[in-house]
Amino acid sequence: MTALEKFFPQVRLDVDRSLNELIPAAGTVPSRLHEAIRWSVFAGGKRIRPAILIAAGTAFGAAINDLSQSAAAVEMIHTYSLIHDDLPAMDDDDLRRGKATCHRQFGEATAILAGDVLQTLAFKAIADDDSLAAGTRIKLISLFAAAAGTPGGMVAGQQLDLDAEGLKLSIEDIEQIHRQKTGALISASAVAGALIGEASDAELEAIGIYSSKLGLLFQITDDLLDITQATETLGKTAGKDLAVEKATYPGHFGIEKTREMAAVICSETREALSPIKRDTALLASFADYVLSRSR
Amino acid sequence: MTALEKFFPQVRLDVDRSLNELIPAAGTVPSRLHEAIRWSVFAGGKRIRPAILIAAGTAFGAAINDLSQSAAAVEMIHTYSLIHDDLPAMDDDDLRRGKATCHRQFGEATAILAGDVLQTLAFKAIADDDSLAAGTRIKLISLFAAAAGTPGGMVAGQQLDLDAEGLKLSIEDIEQIHRQKTGALISASAVAGALIGEASDAELEAIGIYSSKLGLLFQITDDLLDITQATETLGKTAGKDLAVEKATYPGHFGIEKTREMAAVICSETREALSPIKRDTALLASFADYVLSRSR
Repeated sequence: MTALEKFFPQVRLDVDRSLNELIPAAGTVPSRLHEAIRWSVFAGGKRIRPAILIAAGTAFGAAINDLSQSAAAVEMIHTYSLIHDDLPAMDDDDLRRGKATCHRQFGEATAILAGDVLQTLAFKAIADDDSLAAGTRIKLISLFAAAAGTPGGMVAGQQLDLDAEGLKLSIEDIEQIHRQKTGALISASAVAGALIGEASDAELEAIGIYSSKLGLLFQITDDLLDITQATETLGKTAGKDLAVEKATYPGHFGIEKTREMAAVICSETREALSPIKRDTALLASFADYVLSRSR
Repeated sequence: MTALEKFFPQVRLDVDRSLNELIPAAGTVPSRLHEAIRWSVFAGGKRIRPAILIAAGTAFGAAINDLSQSAAAVEMIHTYSLIHDDLPAMDDDDLRRGKATCHRQFGEATAILAGDVLQTLAFKAIADDDSLAAGTRIKLISLFAAAAGTPGGMVAGQQLDLDAEGLKLSIEDIEQIHRQKTGALISASAVAGALIGEASDAELEAIGIYSSKLGLLFQITDDLLDITQATETLGKTAGKDLAVEKATYPGHFGIEKTREMAAVICSETREALSPIKRDTALLASFADYVLSRSR
């Protein structure tokens, strides 16, 4: 069993405990809203963003107690984006992680509200995290808001993706969409962990490069998965992005060339850690893990 | 000209300047997203929440510089909620403030994203507000997140409202929906101003009572307006809430009785200010202003 295989279940335990505390119980009025939130948050997500945050934090000596609320927060932001992304007006997906999407199960109105309030709960979780100094909380909120927002963040990336449907994009455009849509929040997760661990400016810079490459790798392998795996394995409607001519690496380069590029980016991701004189083995193994998803 | 009539244009100037700085320019990529945000934010809203925040803040001696970014933030949260509330899956409104709603103008997908990212920008605006101590920013973010969120806040109130359609509610249920859907954010605006003005705990408590009554008054007069005014005057489809048997005061008590109740709540709102030994004339005149909207 690799270190990462031991690490993931522990992260899930810690983060799910935090999420369970931060999200009102299913029976709390209005119960339909809280059931919808919990349906999506506890749908079997891999907790990759929380894992990266915690891995980066522990590399810089932060205690798990100081990390778990921020880790839960980034998962809430991620889940809000999935709920809204699946809506009929957006990707119109019926399945997510093998289950009905939030709007298929609870209706569109409740799904919109569930996504909205998950974002609210995420920022509240950080603001209320007494284990961190106020100045750290402020930095984390600003960091995640930039990563989730506009012009450089996730929502702007989703808009770019919408705008690109049916167009033939340059590889630079595709990379830009990837960086924002998926990369920004993954990158912010690593930087957040390093911030909580009080990394130096030089270390933060290295983590920024590492995590930005990791985020790109993640989106590329996501695109590969989307094409190469069957719907039932992936738990979402496979091949959908390609079908509507979305901006993807395999759509531009083909599958084989995209696989080669992913391997190169994986090496670069690992190499970006070299200036950091800490135990970065776990962070390095994340790159391999993400690459292996595409096989 | 009353003090309030002089105050509102000044607030609009200050808040619109802040909003303009905090929201990426219309031409910034992805421009469709930023045009959609600006379409809704600069659609001629009355800036009532910012005005209450600034009035409360100045009553406690805060400088306008310390207030304007938080004031812009609460307007962004309010506008995000309007954009999402107008969506086909929610209230399905074509008009807002006499203009096409965001989704009518820019499409549903962009409207969803515009609302999403306005919430993000709101929390970022407070987190990045260098004029305030980090501890104050944390309190404000937590306050607004509670007011906008769940279980006691705005989104939970919207869900309660959805759940109530077609049902005959008790007046307690109606009041609960009102308090959360509209009251919570209005109340938080006043409390935020007082917090920035470093009000004492006793003063904060009084402001909490005042603003909670003001919020209720606001929703009741909103319901009255919705019934008694024509579509063209109000700039949104009038009578709509009653048509779908939504939980409203006039729907429960009739128009005349509701007007009487509004007058009583207006007096109570003013009286709630009496423990505060500051110049609260402007805050008191807000109650009269809100009441007068229903005539």
